[in-house]
Amino acid sequence: MSVFTPVSEAELSDWLRAYTLGPLRELKGILAGIDNSNFFVTTEGDRSGNWPDQTRFVLTLFENLKAEQLPYNLELMEFLSQQGLPSPAPIRDRNGQYLGELNGKPAALVVRLEGDWTERPNVAQCAQVGGLLARMHLAGQAYPQQRENTHGNAWRIRTAIAVSRFLTPAEQGLMENEVALQATFDRSELPTGAIHADLFRDNILFVGDTVSGVIDFYFACTDLLLYDVAITVNDWCMGHDYRFDTARLQAFLQHYHATRPFTAAEAEAWPMMLRAAALRFWLSRLYDYFLPRPAEMNQPKDPRHFHRILAQHVRETPPLPV
Amino acid sequence: MSVFTPVSEAELSDWLRAYTLGPLRELKGILAGIDNSNFFVTTEGDRSGNWPDQTRFVLTLFENLKAEQLPYNLELMEFLSQQGLPSPAPIRDRNGQYLGELNGKPAALVVRLEGDWTERPNVAQCAQVGGLLARMHLAGQAYPQQRENTHGNAWRIRTAIAVSRFLTPAEQGLMENEVALQATFDRSELPTGAIHADLFRDNILFVGDTVSGVIDFYFACTDLLLYDVAITVNDWCMGHDYRFDTARLQAFLQHYHATRPFTAAEAEAWPMMLRAAALRFWLSRLYDYFLPRPAEMNQPKDPRHFHRILAQHVRETPPLPV
Repeated sequence: MSVFTPVSEAELSDWLRAYTLGPLRELKGILAGIDNSNFFVTTEGDRSGNWPDQTRFVLTLFENLKAEQLPYNLELMEFLSQQGLPSPAPIRDRNGQYLGELNGKPAALVVRLEGDWTERPNVAQCAQVGGLLARMHLAGQAYPQQRENTHGNAWRIRTAIAVSRFLTPAEQGLMENEVALQATFDRSELPTGAIHADLFRDNILFVGDTVSGVIDFYFACTDLLLYDVAITVNDWCMGHDYRFDTARLQAFLQHYHATRPFTAAEAEAWPMMLRAAALRFWLSRLYDYFLPRPAEMNQPKDPRHFHRILAQHVRETPPLPV
Repeated sequence: MSVFTPVSEAELSDWLRAYTLGPLRELKGILAGIDNSNFFVTTEGDRSGNWPDQTRFVLTLFENLKAEQLPYNLELMEFLSQQGLPSPAPIRDRNGQYLGELNGKPAALVVRLEGDWTERPNVAQCAQVGGLLARMHLAGQAYPQQRENTHGNAWRIRTAIAVSRFLTPAEQGLMENEVALQATFDRSELPTGAIHADLFRDNILFVGDTVSGVIDFYFACTDLLLYDVAITVNDWCMGHDYRFDTARLQAFLQHYHATRPFTAAEAEAWPMMLRAAALRFWLSRLYDYFLPRPAEMNQPKDPRHFHRILAQHVRETPPLPV
């Protein structure tokens, strides 16, 4: 998460008065990611407050989401955390609110979880993430709120039209085919629910080989569970040549399947879901690369990565283990 | 219809041997239109053949449609003609076939109907066309074949991506909105059937104020009846300022409604249908203008005409008279 909206220590100190977390000790911008402004925040703590043991937080200023969209995400984090899943709890202020406004943007604090993300996950870690994602999907079935995916069909179409001029003829041909195919693909038989929708490697924290946290739920929405699986394996199980690493992919999918078995309709839809997931990030990276917003620190990601993954998926995808 | 594939008199004379229409007297390319290659063909006639009274025909070489798509269209013309509608009958050859191949393209001959098209239709003519379209829609309900619209959702998306680079930022914004809106608009409650899908002024022939022919069924397909109404009034009832001429529009719609009453769902969908119909021809004209195929005689139409109609429809549309 680049920093689009700067926050000063004085501004934050003032803002923190609404919380029982003690005074500010340290504020640090977070570079990774691309959609919101994120900061590590450390406070002196407040033994008499509601969060007596917490001094380390993540502050997020929401750049694109409107305040009315956020209860879905923040309450989902709370809901999953109450179900025993390692999601960070959002911090409520003195009035019981976990959503405020800072420098003109909706803003929230969540507990900063222990652990580090892993750039090169091993087979055991992929297996663990597969099982965890299935447990999140099962737990999410009881979550009562709904939120439409802001990066669904209409977004794909708009974004494709917006970035088209920056594509080579071959890329444009692929884009036309894929966006049109996804727009007419029948999803009616596929199970839906609360999905994370952005479970890349940097959104899972490990202590050793054990998951200690799942973070960044700000794309979470109601959508196809299988699409979430596809987004996740496209990142976690990808080899160097834009083909899946078979061992990591099988470990991920088998552990997922053992907790939430894939349906026959999902097995049939799998290639199209992998393509939808690759297309999603090819599109957003193209947009961020060619039509960037002004940002204080910005590191646009290379769109070609997901172009290559998509092109490979169009050629061939391995089946779901059902 | 520009001529994309030339035909010589010698080639046609040879081809006509398969028919009982007598020898070729005259061959003339037709300039109007944009999708197929069309010719007026006159023969000496054959009093002993199956078409003893016919000497004037239209020959069409299909440039984009594949032979397997054409039975829907040619048999629909025959079906409507048998129901007493003024559609030209396709001509069967000595083997009973009405679809042949000429210079590598699927080709068909139909009877050339009397009458001329009208550039400035009056209120009485619009009323007549409204009633005729409703009768065609009712008769088409019994037509057993189905053909998907080749210019539907997937085509809109592909074409918008292809032409996007030629648009101004404001046009591109409108395009993004409209294509995405149409892609997610719920059409499930709207009546469908066989539609003409291209009933512009040059596709209806009049003798005086009386319709003598409905021609060019080569976009006909299974789609929303109301969409066909929208396509037709966008051409027949348009004023000089890209707003409807109220008298012509009311006459058209009331005569349609008297024969096939609009449903409540159709009344609600009307503004989106008018926009879909304008978008359809904005897109195809943009494509033909900026990405033309090689043609022997080509007169691309100005895409801005339908851009302006669409922009006006987005601002305001008059209601259906239900």
